[in-house]
Amino acid sequence: MAMRNIKLVLAYDGSHFSGWQSQPTARTVQGEVEEKLAMMCQGEVALHGAGRTDAGVHALAMVANFNTTAKISCLGFKKGLNSLLSADIRILKVDEVAADFHARISAKAKTYRYFFSTAEIQLPTLRLYEALVSGVVDIKAMQDVLPLLVGKHDFSSFEAVGSRDLSYVDGRGAVRTLEAVSLKQLGDEAYCLTIRGTGFLRKMVRNIVGTLFDVGRQRISKDDFNKILQAQDRNLAGATAPACGLFLDNIEY
Amino acid sequence: MAMRNIKLVLAYDGSHFSGWQSQPTARTVQGEVEEKLAMMCQGEVALHGAGRTDAGVHALAMVANFNTTAKISCLGFKKGLNSLLSADIRILKVDEVAADFHARISAKAKTYRYFFSTAEIQLPTLRLYEALVSGVVDIKAMQDVLPLLVGKHDFSSFEAVGSRDLSYVDGRGAVRTLEAVSLKQLGDEAYCLTIRGTGFLRKMVRNIVGTLFDVGRQRISKDDFNKILQAQDRNLAGATAPACGLFLDNIEY
Repeated sequence: MAMRNIKLVLAYDGSHFSGWQSQPTARTVQGEVEEKLAMMCQGEVALHGAGRTDAGVHALAMVANFNTTAKISCLGFKKGLNSLLSADIRILKVDEVAADFHARISAKAKTYRYFFSTAEIQLPTLRLYEALVSGVVDIKAMQDVLPLLVGKHDFSSFEAVGSRDLSYVDGRGAVRTLEAVSLKQLGDEAYCLTIRGTGFLRKMVRNIVGTLFDVGRQRISKDDFNKILQAQDRNLAGATAPACGLFLDNIEY
Repeated sequence: MAMRNIKLVLAYDGSHFSGWQSQPTARTVQGEVEEKLAMMCQGEVALHGAGRTDAGVHALAMVANFNTTAKISCLGFKKGLNSLLSADIRILKVDEVAADFHARISAKAKTYRYFFSTAEIQLPTLRLYEALVSGVVDIKAMQDVLPLLVGKHDFSSFEAVGSRDLSYVDGRGAVRTLEAVSLKQLGDEAYCLTIRGTGFLRKMVRNIVGTLFDVGRQRISKDDFNKILQAQDRNLAGATAPACGLFLDNIEY
């Protein structure tokens, strides 16, 4: 029986998941999909995700792959998984790919979006999908800081404490390259930060956004922000921004 | 102690409510707000809503009023209620109004919005806030039908069965006036129907939308739609569209 390599593109509402990565007792996206795949393939299936999203973080197009000898068509996997999975995970696309495709290792770039509101009171229908931030008054100052982030930097200052596991296996340390960062107004008091890079450290986007909020609060200057970035010291950066505002938007191969 | 009349503008996520109207055993928006008002005012408070939304229907700006002798400022009510209420109800505005203001009786017009998607697969982060409809391919045909709805009509064909209670107290029967109906594309396969009228029968918007879906499915023609409207017979119209797509958007006084 020939071994096949199947690529999934999936979207999920992270609100009720303890993140992507399987855990023995918590509800996770990887855990749910692996469970349904095992039912369909009649045996254990290891699903490789392009990255890990944390609890509460959403995905519009996560990519994952798995190997199987099961004779189920791509359309069969798509329809089968969507009928077995709960409504907060949807399989958008299924393709059979070359044996050497690996969702994480083959990824060339990822794009995240971070949605936030500076309103006094947030609409309840948005509360799970945008962060409500207080005191952020200077969006222009936040935009002025963004070019500092673009390029190749050691992002230790924005890396989750105690997370040096996967990030260090390839010898890159905390050095990552951001290719584009922009901050646009969507509505009255609603904004979206878009950040595209070749790789991200754990909680890097949320730690950058949290520090940008301090710029927007006029607590720290552009010069302060640059010093924080250069310092390679997590203690200097701002708080981690709330998970609910973060969406994994796209992965390029 | 002078009797005051307090007007609230409130937004809610209807996903986890059995609608607006108080019920002995179910979780309702009116029930939740009345409970918190009773705590603040130290005695029972009757809250009058501008209308009733059904289970699962959302509101961006519902209006309600209540009478009290409590000496709590408008800002006090706003802050107090928002700290006592769960996150799926937010009080956007509190004003003291004239004694003769009544949220339902004084209302001049209401606007609803209905969001739907014709995508093959819906993003999970939208599943509670737009309806996913199958087979709807002809948006242009739906738009062509809308002018038939504008004006003064007997909307019996679109009235929920067995709902002739409040609608009939003022002698209007099922006659209502729609002032504007439009259907716009928001994204790739995402649409919003906006409907503004002086009054609505129970489930009228969702029954109109459900029948419009049949137009979009090319099951019924413009002429058929007109016959359904004229017939004053609920049995001829389409299925009630899902609650999750419906938002009470605005009430004019």
